[in-house]
Amino acid sequence: MPSRRLRAALLLTAPLALLAPALAAAAAGGGGQADPIARVALDLALILVGAKLGGELATRLGQPAVLGELLIGVALGNLGLLGYAELEGMKQDAALDTLSRLGVLLLLFEVGLESTVRQMLQVGLSALLVATLGVAAPFALGWGAGALLVPAGGPYLHAFLGAALTATSVGITARVLQDLGRSRSPEARIILGAAVIDDVLGLIILAVVSGVIAAAGRGGAVSGLEIAAIVAKAAAFLVGALALGVWLAPRVLRGASRLQTRGVLLAAGLAFCFSLSWLSAALGLAPIVGAFAAGLVLEDVHYRDFVDRGEHGLEELVKPIGAFLVPVFFVVMGLRTDLRAFADPSVLGLAGALTLAAVVGKQVCAAGVLGGADRLSVGIGMVPRGEVGLIFANIGLTLQLGGHPVLSPALYSALVIVVVVTTLVTPPALRWSLGRRRAGSIEKTEASP
Amino acid sequence: MPSRRLRAALLLTAPLALLAPALAAAAAGGGGQADPIARVALDLALILVGAKLGGELATRLGQPAVLGELLIGVALGNLGLLGYAELEGMKQDAALDTLSRLGVLLLLFEVGLESTVRQMLQVGLSALLVATLGVAAPFALGWGAGALLVPAGGPYLHAFLGAALTATSVGITARVLQDLGRSRSPEARIILGAAVIDDVLGLIILAVVSGVIAAAGRGGAVSGLEIAAIVAKAAAFLVGALALGVWLAPRVLRGASRLQTRGVLLAAGLAFCFSLSWLSAALGLAPIVGAFAAGLVLEDVHYRDFVDRGEHGLEELVKPIGAFLVPVFFVVMGLRTDLRAFADPSVLGLAGALTLAAVVGKQVCAAGVLGGADRLSVGIGMVPRGEVGLIFANIGLTLQLGGHPVLSPALYSALVIVVVVTTLVTPPALRWSLGRRRAGSIEKTEASP
Repeated sequence: MPSRRLRAALLLTAPLALLAPALAAAAAGGGGQADPIARVALDLALILVGAKLGGELATRLGQPAVLGELLIGVALGNLGLLGYAELEGMKQDAALDTLSRLGVLLLLFEVGLESTVRQMLQVGLSALLVATLGVAAPFALGWGAGALLVPAGGPYLHAFLGAALTATSVGITARVLQDLGRSRSPEARIILGAAVIDDVLGLIILAVVSGVIAAAGRGGAVSGLEIAAIVAKAAAFLVGALALGVWLAPRVLRGASRLQTRGVLLAAGLAFCFSLSWLSAALGLAPIVGAFAAGLVLEDVHYRDFVDRGEHGLEELVKPIGAFLVPVFFVVMGLRTDLRAFADPSVLGLAGALTLAAVVGKQVCAAGVLGGADRLSVGIGMVPRGEVGLIFANIGLTLQLGGHPVLSPALYSALVIVVVVTTLVTPPALRWSLGRRRAGSIEKTEASP
Repeated sequence: MPSRRLRAALLLTAPLALLAPALAAAAAGGGGQADPIARVALDLALILVGAKLGGELATRLGQPAVLGELLIGVALGNLGLLGYAELEGMKQDAALDTLSRLGVLLLLFEVGLESTVRQMLQVGLSALLVATLGVAAPFALGWGAGALLVPAGGPYLHAFLGAALTATSVGITARVLQDLGRSRSPEARIILGAAVIDDVLGLIILAVVSGVIAAAGRGGAVSGLEIAAIVAKAAAFLVGALALGVWLAPRVLRGASRLQTRGVLLAAGLAFCFSLSWLSAALGLAPIVGAFAAGLVLEDVHYRDFVDRGEHGLEELVKPIGAFLVPVFFVVMGLRTDLRAFADPSVLGLAGALTLAAVVGKQVCAAGVLGGADRLSVGIGMVPRGEVGLIFANIGLTLQLGGHPVLSPALYSALVIVVVVTTLVTPPALRWSLGRRRAGSIEKTEASP
């Protein structure tokens, strides 16, 4: 009975609606405190309560919890449109920004822990094909949509729009798969593997397109050597870090298990995750790629010594930290979504075309799936652009071409809408496509319940 | 065999010594990354590795792990004296500051969870007496030491020095008790209860002394009404928040247990902790007072519904988050300790006298212990001034009297030394006094192993 579910969900969110103004008024009054953590603590309390109520509402409506967290964030972040501006400070708050970025690192680390390098290699060819097609198709379609709708922009702009549609932001998909208990499925491995490769390919495209545009802006040309260097660094990270990690992790953890202080396993695991995150950023990749790689490399057998003497396993130790920080990431992502971008009709047409290009382009990549995994789910899982799309859009505002930024404000808004729509559409779509699959005959591909 | 222990400990820290320059050089190179979390991640990896190796060294030498975390921080923070300045940025880094402040909130929340309001009320009279004596005696001795050594400073300065010695910073003691598995002992409850009351009394004294000095600086007098308002707010928080919490917590948690999403218990517990932290700061108290009160209020019976259906208890869920963030607090506290303050002989004499006043003053409070708890351990547990002392010292730099700050740079350095010495001396002293007690006859006062 969806109507009874809806009533229950509405009843549950009522306390939040009552609580929010009181908390927010208190937050506004507390801004002048001596200890800066007081304001952060209040914001975190609001985020945690909001995330759980939003998640509950979504769950009762049969959707993944992450959709509720995003939408609660969108609702809180756009209270300013109703004249209530007390929460505006949360959008760019440095402390919340740090915690949300740590949250997405921990999410990818957690998801990485659920798979092993060996399992990833088994889907390696699929992931590589999916990633390549999933970059090429949106690039071509985005270029085409740009050429069709903004013909005056010229090929540089069209190429940039295509590039902006390439990168997959895997945070949303990872959470949906986790919410549905499917993060160990073959679809999950293909999507996650492809997203990592995607990140590398998207980075190369962005670097090349930006380089060409920057060179054109100066009236010169980009060096082939520069492109080669980017490609080499990315490949070195993927191969090198994984190989080094696989060799190093068991040795370090065996040494660490000789220490007598408490909490050594968690500290070693987190330090490994954070080091690889930094390393991947130092090589110009997204830090989440490193966090995911760290999770992949660490396997149960490496810390059997700890578990044997009665300590918790790494997955179990990381879970509460993720439960604290991951919702911060999704609520803050929602907070920063400005609904006013949807109000401009000229922007909406452009955004619609680009969103279509983004979604259809990623469906093409489903053709790269080999074996029994569900093609539609993989295609949908690759759809969200999330914060990676926003990074592209922001670079477009700073890149100069003929004295103007490559992206006009309207095009920037259109890209923001692409990010919002692909992000919000993925959780229900992925749930539907995986459920359709589950209702069908092939249950054996699922590795865990 | 202490010498074999020492060798083992030295062997274990060797990897850190090798690792530190590499990590730090890498950190310096990574400063220009696009994603700001990369640098934070590297700092966190360094802190976690350092904390565990420092803790291990301390444990092998028979000391509480927190001493090692502090000293590793001091060592890393003073590498600048050896010409290695790469880590200087960590001292005031905003992200690390946020994480360390969250860490101390979680520590006090964890410690609060280990006791109940009823258990605290049982030691209430002892705690009140200990707190009152522990504020009055250091205040009088600090005033006296000031009058003796800086007679030209006048009574306002002397009163300020006395006030700066009153507040107990309970983070160190809480960790030492935890490291030694004694956080449920009567001594622990008396110290923690007294520290909370201490914070309130110290706050009142600071407010009154600052008010009088500020009024004198303007040539006026402080209003008795202002003092009464501070006292009333503090009392209202302690009584009101605890009473409200005791009434509210079981009801909210019972409601929350009806939600279906995962992680509700942890989110509700953390939101409660953060809300009370904010509330206590809004009333002018330290946020850690609120975090501790939140832990006290929440009891196992409140979340039995969650545990009954197979979820982890709140203590178990909070522990890994604490294991991640608490070492950040202690290492950062060590990082900010400037060893150069110890190099000035004139400052050292003053600092020695004030430290003596601080330590002896807190021993007087042991007379307030009723019943069988160990008086010496309570007196030692009240010694550390930690960040509360630093807050007093910083206020002294901003308070103006006759056109000059109340505290001269030399007096400021002396107060910093008091904080450093009382903080570093407490872990080994407390371990010794509790061990002495344990070796004696009365074992029955210990509630848990």
